[in-house]
Amino acid sequence: MAAESMDAEQKNKNVTHHGHHLEEMEREEEVGGGESDNVGKRIQPWRKQITMRGIITSTIVGSIYSVIAMKLNLTTGITPHFNVSAALLAFVFIETWTKILRKAGIVSVPFTPQENTMILTCAVACYSIAISGGLGSYLLALDKTTYEHAGVDTPGNNPRSYKELTIGWMTGYQFLVCFIGLFVLIPLRKILVIDYKLTYPTGMATAVLINGFHSRGVKEAKKQIRGFMKYFSIGFLWAFFQWFYSGKQKCGFSQFPTFGLQAWKKSFFFDFSLTYVGTGMICSHIVNLSLLFGAVISWGIMYPLFRNLKGKWFPANIDEESMKSLNGYKVFLSISLLLGDGLYNFVKITCITLTSLYGQMKRKNLDQVGVSQNTPALDDQRKDEIFIRESIPMWVGVVGYIALTIFSAIVLPLMFHELKWHYIIICYIFVPSLAFCNAYGTGLTDINMAYNYGKVGLFAIAAMAGKEHGVVAALLACGLVKSVVNVSCVLMQDFKTGHLTLTSPRTMFVSQAIGTVIGCVVAPLSFFLFYKAFDIGDPHGEYKAPFAIIYRNLAIISVEGFSALPKHCLELCYGFFAFAVGLNVMRDVVPERIGKWLPLPMAMALPFLIGANFAIDMNIGTLVVFLWHKSDSRKATLMVLAVASGLICGEGLWILPASLLSLIKITPPICMTFLPA
Amino acid sequence: MAAESMDAEQKNKNVTHHGHHLEEMEREEEVGGGESDNVGKRIQPWRKQITMRGIITSTIVGSIYSVIAMKLNLTTGITPHFNVSAALLAFVFIETWTKILRKAGIVSVPFTPQENTMILTCAVACYSIAISGGLGSYLLALDKTTYEHAGVDTPGNNPRSYKELTIGWMTGYQFLVCFIGLFVLIPLRKILVIDYKLTYPTGMATAVLINGFHSRGVKEAKKQIRGFMKYFSIGFLWAFFQWFYSGKQKCGFSQFPTFGLQAWKKSFFFDFSLTYVGTGMICSHIVNLSLLFGAVISWGIMYPLFRNLKGKWFPANIDEESMKSLNGYKVFLSISLLLGDGLYNFVKITCITLTSLYGQMKRKNLDQVGVSQNTPALDDQRKDEIFIRESIPMWVGVVGYIALTIFSAIVLPLMFHELKWHYIIICYIFVPSLAFCNAYGTGLTDINMAYNYGKVGLFAIAAMAGKEHGVVAALLACGLVKSVVNVSCVLMQDFKTGHLTLTSPRTMFVSQAIGTVIGCVVAPLSFFLFYKAFDIGDPHGEYKAPFAIIYRNLAIISVEGFSALPKHCLELCYGFFAFAVGLNVMRDVVPERIGKWLPLPMAMALPFLIGANFAIDMNIGTLVVFLWHKSDSRKATLMVLAVASGLICGEGLWILPASLLSLIKITPPICMTFLPA
Repeated sequence: MAAESMDAEQKNKNVTHHGHHLEEMEREEEVGGGESDNVGKRIQPWRKQITMRGIITSTIVGSIYSVIAMKLNLTTGITPHFNVSAALLAFVFIETWTKILRKAGIVSVPFTPQENTMILTCAVACYSIAISGGLGSYLLALDKTTYEHAGVDTPGNNPRSYKELTIGWMTGYQFLVCFIGLFVLIPLRKILVIDYKLTYPTGMATAVLINGFHSRGVKEAKKQIRGFMKYFSIGFLWAFFQWFYSGKQKCGFSQFPTFGLQAWKKSFFFDFSLTYVGTGMICSHIVNLSLLFGAVISWGIMYPLFRNLKGKWFPANIDEESMKSLNGYKVFLSISLLLGDGLYNFVKITCITLTSLYGQMKRKNLDQVGVSQNTPALDDQRKDEIFIRESIPMWVGVVGYIALTIFSAIVLPLMFHELKWHYIIICYIFVPSLAFCNAYGTGLTDINMAYNYGKVGLFAIAAMAGKEHGVVAALLACGLVKSVVNVSCVLMQDFKTGHLTLTSPRTMFVSQAIGTVIGCVVAPLSFFLFYKAFDIGDPHGEYKAPFAIIYRNLAIISVEGFSALPKHCLELCYGFFAFAVGLNVMRDVVPERIGKWLPLPMAMALPFLIGANFAIDMNIGTLVVFLWHKSDSRKATLMVLAVASGLICGEGLWILPASLLSLIKITPPICMTFLPA
Repeated sequence: MAAESMDAEQKNKNVTHHGHHLEEMEREEEVGGGESDNVGKRIQPWRKQITMRGIITSTIVGSIYSVIAMKLNLTTGITPHFNVSAALLAFVFIETWTKILRKAGIVSVPFTPQENTMILTCAVACYSIAISGGLGSYLLALDKTTYEHAGVDTPGNNPRSYKELTIGWMTGYQFLVCFIGLFVLIPLRKILVIDYKLTYPTGMATAVLINGFHSRGVKEAKKQIRGFMKYFSIGFLWAFFQWFYSGKQKCGFSQFPTFGLQAWKKSFFFDFSLTYVGTGMICSHIVNLSLLFGAVISWGIMYPLFRNLKGKWFPANIDEESMKSLNGYKVFLSISLLLGDGLYNFVKITCITLTSLYGQMKRKNLDQVGVSQNTPALDDQRKDEIFIRESIPMWVGVVGYIALTIFSAIVLPLMFHELKWHYIIICYIFVPSLAFCNAYGTGLTDINMAYNYGKVGLFAIAAMAGKEHGVVAALLACGLVKSVVNVSCVLMQDFKTGHLTLTSPRTMFVSQAIGTVIGCVVAPLSFFLFYKAFDIGDPHGEYKAPFAIIYRNLAIISVEGFSALPKHCLELCYGFFAFAVGLNVMRDVVPERIGKWLPLPMAMALPFLIGANFAIDMNIGTLVVFLWHKSDSRKATLMVLAVASGLICGEGLWILPASLLSLIKITPPICMTFLPA
């Protein structure tokens, strides 16, 4: 699911243009002294930092990115970091807002970095639920379509293991599982952010970005905004234009056989999706190249070979999309790559976390002896002061967590009879320590492993629940664990951002809570926008929703064992699992200049299931960025993210009219097809 | 044919960007003193002005533009001025040439304006034959396909009135008719260029361009060349890419229903032809808008109405492409517009010519009395001196003309038994006065009316030859008259250019002769490249060759009268003829600010026959230019022609591989089609 690829990207940030961009801005900040400007000014009280216009802006921005993220989730499952993009859009909104008010003769309060932080926190919290709320993965896995695609006669995939998706229970579920996460780590806030001085690279980058916005030259910001608007229009108009030719199915530019019909049959073609070109521009080169590498291995080499084994390895008379046929290999090979990568990183981060914690404790002992090596600078002191002064009482966290746990344990079993109350209690007993591990690990490495913790929950509950209700219970428990671990980690990142932008922790907490509320409403809404308008989960269509089938199969395997796999699939899975682990080990042992070019198994796994076309799109994005940096690196550094965001948002905006047209049954008038001449 | 639309454009040059461009350069020249620089230097003797590298360069450039012009001729019949484009390409060639030689350690002689003039004269003479040698009009009208499209049962279109087109007689015919033109006006050279001080705007523009090239900043020229190269690559790659999807017929981007399938059926769509976008960028706004206006009137309004009259006005059971059906209206309505416009301008220019000549003579008488009003400036004196010193003896002209006339009168009747020797003698007796009128008129107004004089020849000989051989004799005589009148006029323009660039008239004469030789070989070759590779004259295909059918029908009418026309067609023709004359009168009587927006009948006539799609392309070009001038006029002035030339040449270069592929029967692998969804 989304988070997985995000992380794959984060790991490599230091070698990418994205990384450069941030470094650039950090440097600028040091020189321009953006931050110290803020330090010099009086900081508003925290209640003033949360404004009405802020909430409105973040609702709008959050909703836009929820829809975009949902589309990405339901098509390929790849969602890039939208932080910069969202910050830009929020900035455009507030600027327009104040400009309009000024023209109307109303003087508005100045736009402070603290308000900006609040808006961004709120907006990110909102669309985070669309990204990692499981609507495109473990919840969609409960759907009847996914159940059918997993094979109605697959052992373990029993006919009672699907649920009708309704907006009611999905919203309720989101509210229940997302809010607990807000409370779980509150007591440990100071330890993680101030005492351990964890970096939280994403949180820090956001802070740098915001401080940059408020100190950088107006000219540069204007250029970025103009670039954004231009490519926004291009993206929108292009999507609009494409629509007319997309006919009913398998028509239009999204089926353009750019490299010939033979390559098209193997899913190698450029499908003219500017969203993925933009996504490719944001993601690092190695992520894009890994996608392409995975695509070549799977669709280019392995699947044609498998087709030749039709009748030997798998029956020739059943549909290729059946789990017993070619599709079984597709699903399970990508699962094994994901699991191999996940397991390795899980172990690695846990080790780093434990070692570091051990080191911290030893140091603390030393400190207590009186050897304080590093006196914090004046700046840091002031930051720490603000962070500590406006504290959130310990009891809020404890009471909130216990109350919500009890509430969940009562309500969730009523909603889903498969999920017994004691499973929930067990989950919530273990979750705080998992959440701490994850928050600490993310702080150190910037790799948010929430999805892996979620899988731990999935396997554990599946084992407990047994064959009858195992699949449903496991999928729901997976969401439960993952959401808590994820939200708490994101909150901790926000605290880091707040710490650096001198925003009160209370502001951060409240805006995260507001964002979560909005997100819990908006995410299911945007999901149903797609769910009603398009054919979600169709393996031939645009909305393949790959993670739904992956999660259902994970649940089936954990309930049933490996009996569900087609012939020789298990051996291949072992191989790919080992390959994924091996690649990770290699990356860590070989020198960085070689290691950074090793493919990422997580990114490789996605095209295995989805096809090569989006990998082509993303590699075109990466090529554009590469050439741009070659020809004019300064301009590229300034503009790449603005252009990419413009493309993504522009094509994203078309989703709304497109789904409306689809809902009122207006189909495109023309079908552009490609036939052999 | 080509010349007709060229002229339509020239008339409006003063209101267009093209005009601006030239004005700009003239101004620059005045400031930078490009010309006076040249004046200061010693001019080479005329034999040194003609160099080997010059001849090679002009052969290459001339051949490239011959192929491009031929394609334009055979598709829509619109060919823009290639002078600037050719000058740019020649400049690039010579620059590259000297750079390579310099790297090889060979010092080459500097590139002088005189050499440049010679190259351009030679290249223009070469591709002029492709444009106005009649290969896409009156000679193609002799083809069997055109005969068939004119209707095998049409009275006057008798089965002996077609000839097999072979490269042999077509090359011979070109040599015969083109060379006489070189000699006819030589004795009057000094009178037209120096005594009458005729402006010859095109010749002057070419001189300004060349002087500009040799005085302008290197930076600007480099920018233009870089722009040219960039769009050249884009044009070529785009054409290459398009090819793959163009299938066998009615496939690919050239059939893209940009405005929907309904509009596509009415031929309103953007066919992604960058050649026509570039052509539209070169042509003036009013030419492009006139095309669109014509397209809307004909394909948008009239033809759908005519279709409803099927069965009433014309039989419902015969093919729409028959001359007795819809196609008859198409052909004859465009003929009447062309004739109306032609006649008006013929009369107008003749009046202007006669009035002016009368004035000149009166002035001469005054001069003889001793009242010399204007002493020429030093510059002019020097120009005049060079022009007169290096004279071409009178006897060359007279002997050449008489010898070639006798030769033609012997050879042509042997080649074509329909063309009697006395027709030829009669033609060549009257031609010198026609040539003088045209050369004088062009010098005054820049409207080369050769095609109208050609039609005079067509009607006259058709009347003499009678029904049996009338069509063939008329078409051949049309070419004979037109070529002489045209070549002599172009030569006079060249003398003007030479006068301004201080190039010897001998150089101009020799390079025009060399260019004509090359052109007489290259033009038929490039014609046969298309003729063999594509289905020329197919009214449904890309190569409609509209002027072939127009000329054949002109010949049929002049032999047979109006009996060949479908019902009510004659009345409509009268109407459109009057409309064309009326528009021209309007243009001359209303104030210029309104008059300049009146459509040009000649430009309107073309879409009547061909369809609206190329008008859409050209209007996109005009829109690009318009917006570019709005946003950055300085850059647009500098770059528009370079970009347009790049697009035209880039897509033009693809013609070669495309026709080779077609000749060796390799068809595109994919057919991109558009079906109603």
